[in-house]
Amino acid sequence: ASLAPRLPTSSTTLFTAKKAKNLTFQAIGEALGRDEVAVAALFYGQAKATSADIGALAELLEIPQEQLEAELGEWPDRGRSIDLPPKDPLLYRLFEIMQNYGYAYKAVMNEKFGDGIMSAIAFSTKVEKESDEVGDWVKITLRGKW
Amino acid sequence: ASLAPRLPTSSTTLFTAKKAKNLTFQAIGEALGRDEVAVAALFYGQAKATSADIGALAELLEIPQEQLEAELGEWPDRGRSIDLPPKDPLLYRLFEIMQNYGYAYKAVMNEKFGDGIMSAIAFSTKVEKESDEVGDWVKITLRGKW
Amino acid sequence: ASLAPRLPTSSTTLFTAKKAKNLTFQAIGEALGRDEVAVAALFYGQAKATSADIGALAELLEIPQEQLEAELGEWPDRGRSIDLPPKDPLLYRLFEIMQNYGYAYKAVMNEKFGDGIMSAIAFSTKVEKESDEVGDWVKITLRGKW
Amino acid sequence: ASLAPRLPTSSTTLFTAKKAKNLTFQAIGEALGRDEVAVAALFYGQAKATSADIGALAELLEIPQEQLEAELGEWPDRGRSIDLPPKDPLLYRLFEIMQNYGYAYKAVMNEKFGDGIMSAIAFSTKVEKESDEVGDWVKITLRGKW
Amino acid sequence: ASLAPRLPTSSTTLFTAKKAKNLTFQAIGEALGRDEVAVAALFYGQAKATSADIGALAELLEIPQEQLEAELGEWPDRGRSIDLPPKDPLLYRLFEIMQNYGYAYKAVMNEKFGDGIMSAIAFSTKVEKESDEVGDWVKITLRGKW
Amino acid sequence: ASLAPRLPTSSTTLFTAKKAKNLTFQAIGEALGRDEVAVAALFYGQAKATSADIGALAELLEIPQEQLEAELGEWPDRGRSIDLPPKDPLLYRLFEIMQNYGYAYKAVMNEKFGDGIMSAIAFSTKVEKESDEVGDWVKITLRGKW
Amino acid sequence: ASLAPRLPTSSTTLFTAKKAKNLTFQAIGEALGRDEVAVAALFYGQAKATSADIGALAELLEIPQEQLEAELGEWPDRGRSIDLPPKDPLLYRLFEIMQNYGYAYKAVMNEKFGDGIMSAIAFSTKVEKESDEVGDWVKITLRGKW
Amino acid sequence: ASLAPRLPTSSTTLFTAKKAKNLTFQAIGEALGRDEVAVAALFYGQAKATSADIGALAELLEIPQEQLEAELGEWPDRGRSIDLPPKDPLLYRLFEIMQNYGYAYKAVMNEKFGDGIMSAIAFSTKVEKESDEVGDWVKITLRGKW
Amino acid sequence: ASLAPRLPTSSTTLFTAKKAKNLTFQAIGEALGRDEVAVAALFYGQAKATSADIGALAELLEIPQEQLEAELGEWPDRGRSIDLPPKDPLLYRLFEIMQNYGYAYKAVMNEKFGDGIMSAIAFSTKVEKESDEVGDWVKITLRGKW
Amino acid sequence: ASLAPRLPTSSTTLFTAKKAKNLTFQAIGEALGRDEVAVAALFYGQAKATSADIGALAELLEIPQEQLEAELGEWPDRGRSIDLPPKDPLLYRLFEIMQNYGYAYKAVMNEKFGDGIMSAIAFSTKVEKESDEVGDWVKITLRGKW
Repeated sequence: ASLAPRLPTSSTTLFTAKKAKNLTFQAIGEALGRDEVAVAALFYGQAKATSADIGALAELLEIPQEQLEAELGEWPDRGRSIDLPPKDPLLYRLFEIMQNYGYAYKAVMNEKFGDGIMSAIAFSTKVEKESDEVGDWVKITLRGKW
Repeated sequence: ASLAPRLPTSSTTLFTAKKAKNLTFQAIGEALGRDEVAVAALFYGQAKATSADIGALAELLEIPQEQLEAELGEWPDRGRSIDLPPKDPLLYRLFEIMQNYGYAYKAVMNEKFGDGIMSAIAFSTKVEKESDEVGDWVKITLRGKW
Repeated sequence: ASLAPRLPTSSTTLFTAKKAKNLTFQAIGEALGRDEVAVAALFYGQAKATSADIGALAELLEIPQEQLEAELGEWPDRGRSIDLPPKDPLLYRLFEIMQNYGYAYKAVMNEKFGDGIMSAIAFSTKVEKESDEVGDWVKITLRGKW
Repeated sequence: ASLAPRLPTSSTTLFTAKKAKNLTFQAIGEALGRDEVAVAALFYGQAKATSADIGALAELLEIPQEQLEAELGEWPDRGRSIDLPPKDPLLYRLFEIMQNYGYAYKAVMNEKFGDGIMSAIAFSTKVEKESDEVGDWVKITLRGKW
Repeated sequence: ASLAPRLPTSSTTLFTAKKAKNLTFQAIGEALGRDEVAVAALFYGQAKATSADIGALAELLEIPQEQLEAELGEWPDRGRSIDLPPKDPLLYRLFEIMQNYGYAYKAVMNEKFGDGIMSAIAFSTKVEKESDEVGDWVKITLRGKW
Repeated sequence: ASLAPRLPTSSTTLFTAKKAKNLTFQAIGEALGRDEVAVAALFYGQAKATSADIGALAELLEIPQEQLEAELGEWPDRGRSIDLPPKDPLLYRLFEIMQNYGYAYKAVMNEKFGDGIMSAIAFSTKVEKESDEVGDWVKITLRGKW
Repeated sequence: ASLAPRLPTSSTTLFTAKKAKNLTFQAIGEALGRDEVAVAALFYGQAKATSADIGALAELLEIPQEQLEAELGEWPDRGRSIDLPPKDPLLYRLFEIMQNYGYAYKAVMNEKFGDGIMSAIAFSTKVEKESDEVGDWVKITLRGKW
Repeated sequence: ASLAPRLPTSSTTLFTAKKAKNLTFQAIGEALGRDEVAVAALFYGQAKATSADIGALAELLEIPQEQLEAELGEWPDRGRSIDLPPKDPLLYRLFEIMQNYGYAYKAVMNEKFGDGIMSAIAFSTKVEKESDEVGDWVKITLRGKW
Repeated sequence: ASLAPRLPTSSTTLFTAKKAKNLTFQAIGEALGRDEVAVAALFYGQAKATSADIGALAELLEIPQEQLEAELGEWPDRGRSIDLPPKDPLLYRLFEIMQNYGYAYKAVMNEKFGDGIMSAIAFSTKVEKESDEVGDWVKITLRGKW
Repeated sequence: ASLAPRLPTSSTTLFTAKKAKNLTFQAIGEALGRDEVAVAALFYGQAKATSADIGALAELLEIPQEQLEAELGEWPDRGRSIDLPPKDPLLYRLFEIMQNYGYAYKAVMNEKFGDGIMSAIAFSTKVEKESDEVGDWVKITLRGKW
C-alpha cells in the first residue's frame, strides 16, 4: 500500500501531485503526448524526461518547474526499485512468462531474424484492455529493434 | 551452440528430428494448428502436448508415436532450463524489459483493471517481424486473462 | 516482539488501533463479514481493502476515515515483508510443508485435474482449531480455482 | 516431462512400475490404506515406508520385495528434489500462498493458540476436487499438531 | 561492541537496564526461576515472556511494568537478528558443529529413535562451565522431544 | 532413501559393509572404543581415521585393510555433503536451534568465560536417549575447549 | 534520477558543486590535468585525490579547502556503490562484454603475453566519441601493466 | 589447466585441432579475416560462425566440414561458461575494472552522448600489446554503437 | 572515503580522535604496547579492549574514560563490517590469496602437522614493509596455534 | 577423504604419482628448487609449470614427459576448486582471518604505504612450523609487491 522502495525523489513528488490532482496515467500521457506506460516508467525513474515533458508535467501537476528540473535533470539509474525474482504476484507473473517462454522466444526469433537480439532500448511498449464474454484480457505489446 | 541445460528427453528427440527434416517452428506450427511460439515452448518442455499434437508431431517428424507418447506423456516440470538472471544477451533483454518496466506495467494495469493480476496460464503469446526503413523490428504480444 | 519489517504505513495504524481496542482478528472479521485470515492479510498489506472494508474498519477501530482511505487507497505491493526461507519457526513450518510435499501435491493435482495450476488469486483460505485427547490441532484450508 | 531432479533410486523404480501398471495415486492409496498425497510423498522419497507399505507396494506394483526393501529401507533425506523458490508455476503458486499469507497465518494462529508452532511432522494433508458452476476448485487441507 | 541488528525494542530496554543494574543472566535467571540461556533468549526476542516473567523483570530491573507489557506483549518474530552463516567466530563455531556433524547426528538419531525429528520447540538447553588441568570447557546440552 | 551427496568413496564402502553386517553405530563404536557419533562422522568423511580405527574397521566389517587404508588415508575435506540451510527437517531443526539461540549462547558464554570462543576442534559430542511419561527425548551434549 | 547508493560524503559535496557551476567532467579534467574518467572516478570515491587535486577542485568548484581535505583525506573503500550484476542497462552492457568476452580475452592475452594478468591498478582508461555515417560510437580504452 | 566448464561440443573440436596444428588465434584470425579476439570468442561459443568462417576453419584446422557445420550451426547460448564474479585473477581484474569504473563510465558517457547505452552487440573489440621501458602493457579497446 | 559500514559506535569515537590527534596506528600501538594491526582491529571492533587498553587510549586520545568504557565494554560481534567477497581491490587481493592458495596451504599443513587446523583465535599477525631495488613489498605474517 | 572438486586432469596424475612414490611436498619442492606451497599450488592447478618444472616432475614422479606436457601445458583457470565461504574448518580459519582482520590490514597498509594494493601476483608465500612449550604453531608468510 505504498511506493516501491529505492525510488528517486522525483517519484514522491510526481505520485503525490498525481494523487492530489486525481489524474490517471492515461490522462497525463495524453497531455504529454506519450504512451501511459512510458509516463508510468518516467514516474518510477526508469526513463529520462525531456524539457518538454518537464514543462508539461509542471503545468499539469502544478509543481514548480525549477523543482522538477532539478529532480528530473539527472541521468536515470534504472532498475533499482525491483527485486529479482519479484514477490508481488502481478510482477511475478510477468517474470514467469519470460522464465517459461524465454528459450521459445529465442528459438523463434533466431529462426525469423538470424543471430542477434531484440533491443530493450530502441523499444516501445503498451498495455491494452480487451474484453470478451469470458471477461477482461490484458494485452501487452513489446516492440524492439532487431 | 547446443541445447539449453536441464531439458527433458523429449527435447532432444524433437530438436534432432526437426533438424533432420529441416523444418521451421512456423512450418511445424502450421501443421499442428498452433502458434510457432507455443510449438517452441512444447519443444523446450514448457507446455503439455495434447494427443492431437503428439499424433501430428509423430507423423510430421517421423518419430515413432509410442516413443513420443512416452516422452511427452508426463506432466511438464516447467522453468527448469533457464537461470535467473539469464546470461545470454537475447534472454537478458527480455528480463531487462520486465525489470525496468515492471512497476510501470503494474501501475497502469491497476489503474485500468483495479486490483488483480494478468494470468500467465490463461495466456497466449506470439512473435511477429515488422520491417521499415530503419530495419527489422520484433513485436512480441502477451495476452493474458485478468 | 514487534511488527514484521517492510510493512506499509497502514499496518502500523491498524495494529495500533486493534491493540488499543483489544480486538481479535475474529471479532474484526465478524464486523467486516470477512474471514479472520483475510483480515489479517489486509492488516499486513497483502490484500486490497474495499470501500466497505475501510468504512467498517474506520468505525470499529475509531480511525479517521480519510486517513484510512489515504493509507489503504494504494494498490498493494504484496510479499515484501517476508524473507525466503523464513527464519521464524512457525513461518518456516509452513514453507517446509510446501518444500516437502510440493511435488506430491503437483503429482496428485495433475492426476486429478490434468495440466494446469491451482490459482493463488481466485483463492480463499481459513484457519481452524480442532481439539482431541492428544491436544490442539491447527487445520488450514486452501481453496483455489483450477 | 521427466522426474524431478535429485530423487532416490526408489523413485525411479516406483514411478516406472506405476506407469507400467497404469495406476493412479488414488488407487495405490486405497490398496495401501493411505491417503494419495502420502503415497505420492513416499514415491518422491519424502516419507518413510513401513514394512506393510513395502509389502503392499511390492505386490501391487509387482516389484521384487527385496529390491523395494533395499531401496526404501534407508532413512529419507527429505527436501532434496525441490529448489526454492520453485520455477514451475504450480509449485510456485503453493509457495506464493505461504509468502503472501505467512504473517497472516501466524497472527491468527498466535491469537487462537498462543505462542508456539503448527507441527509439520505430526501432520497430515489431503487434496480434494470440488466443482461448481464456475469450474473446478482444488481444496488442500493441512492439519498439524500445535 | 554493540547489540546485534534487527532486534525488537524490548531488547534495548532490557539490555540497558541489565547493564545499569550490573546483573548477570545467571542472577536474573535465578530471580525468574528460569535457566540463564532462556533468559538471554528472552532478552534477544527469541522467547515469549509470561506474565510472571514480566512482573519479575519489571521489579528486578526497575522498568515500568506497563512498558514491559507493551514491549514484550507481542508474539516473537524469531530468528531475525542472525545472519546465516554467521561471521562472528563464536557464532560460527556453533554452526560449524552442526555443519560437520549434521549427518552423523541424523544417522545416530535414526538408528536410536527410528524416523522422525528432534523438536526445537519442545526443547530446553543450558550452558555449563567445566574446568580441568587443560583449562576451561564449555558444555552445551540440547534436549528435545522426539 | 540414499546417501547424502558429495561424500568420499570411503563412505560408500563403509555404509555398504555396515548394512551387510547389519551393525549399528553403537556396536561399531564399542568395537572401536569410540563414541557412536564420532563413528558416524568418520563414515561421513568428517573425521580422520587412525591406524587403529582402520584396523578395527577392516576386521569388523571384513573390508580389505589395504582398501580402507587407501580410501581413509587422505586428509578429510570436511563439510562438503551438507547444504546450508539444510532442507531435511531433522537437519534443519539442529540449525534452527543455533539460529534462534545463537546470540543467547554467545551472551551467556561471554558472561561465564569472558571474550573468546568454544572450540569446534578440541571438541566431543554425544547423543543420548531419555524416556519419561511424555515420551522419548533426544539429549545432545556438545563439549568444547574455551 | 539521483546519486548511486553507498557513496562517501565527498560525492555529494562534489556533485552538488559541479552542478551549481554547470561544469562537465571534461572541463574539470582539463583544469586538473587529469582524464575525465579519472575525475568521475574521483567524484564517485573510487580514486584517491592528491593534494594538488584537492587544491584545484577547491578553487574551481569554490568548496572550502579544509572541507575537501577532510572529506577526501581518507583512503577510498572502493567498489561499494555498485551491485553485481548491475541492473542499469548502461552498466549492465559493460559487464555483459566482460561476461561474454572474458575467456576470449584471457585466451588471447595468455597467447600474447604468457601466464599472468593485466593489472587493474597500474592502469589507465578513457572514453572517446567517434561518429560516422551510421551514428555515434563509444570507444573505451583500457590499458594495464602486464 | 583445462577448458572452461559448460562449453558447447564445438569448443572441444576447435581447441583440439588448434593445438594439434599449433596455431595461434592471431594466425587463425588472419586466415579468416577476423580479429583474434573474435576468433577466440567463436572458439568459446560466444559468437555465431558464418558459412565462410566454417569453410575456412574446416580447411585450416582439417576438420570435416559437415562436422563443423553441425556443431557450429546452432544459435549460440552465450555467457554460460563464466561464473560471476569470476575467481580466476585475470578474469577478475576485467570485472574489477567495470566494478570500480562503472559509474564513472556512465557519468562520462551520459555527459558526452546524453541518455542511452553503449551497445554490446553492435560492438567490436581488440587486444594489443605495447611495450615501454617499464615493461609490457595490455591495451583493450571496446567500441560500441551508442 | 569514509568508514566501513556496520561498525560499532566506538569506531567513530576512536577514528575521530585518532585523526584529531594525527596519530598513526604504529604510534598508538607503541603507547599501548600492542602491535599496530591489533590496534587497528580494536578500532574496527574486531578485538576486545582490556582495561589497560581503555585507560591508555583514553589518555592518549583524550577521550573521557567512562565513554570509552561504555563503548568498548560490550563483547565484540566480529566480522560484521566486511562483505564477502570484498569489492575493494586491496581487501579482495587478501581473499584472492586464500582462494587460490587455500588447498595448497591445507595440503602442506596436513603434511607438516597431521590432521587439525591453524587457530584463528590463538593467533597473532603483523604487517611489515620491506624495500629493495624493485620497490616496496608488504610482508604479512600469520601465526596461529595448531 | 578425496581430492577437492573441479580440479584439472593434471591434479589426478600428480597426486596419484606422489602417493605411489610416497613423497612429501617438501621433498618435491627440494627436487624442483621451489617452495613446497608453490609445488602444492601447482598440483592443485593454481600455478603454471615451467618446462623445467615439467621435466623435473616427470623424472621424479616417473610420469611420461609428453603426458605431463599435455596436461600442464594449458593456461591455469585458477580458483575453481574452492567454494566461498569454505566449509572445511582449516580452509575456513584462513578466510576468517581475512574476514576479521581485513579492514585492519587495509588501514595499516594505507598508513605505511599510501594508496594502493598488495599484489597477489608478484607474490610469494610459505608455511613454517614453530614449536614452543605450548605446542606447535603454524607461521604463514605472505609477501607481495606494493
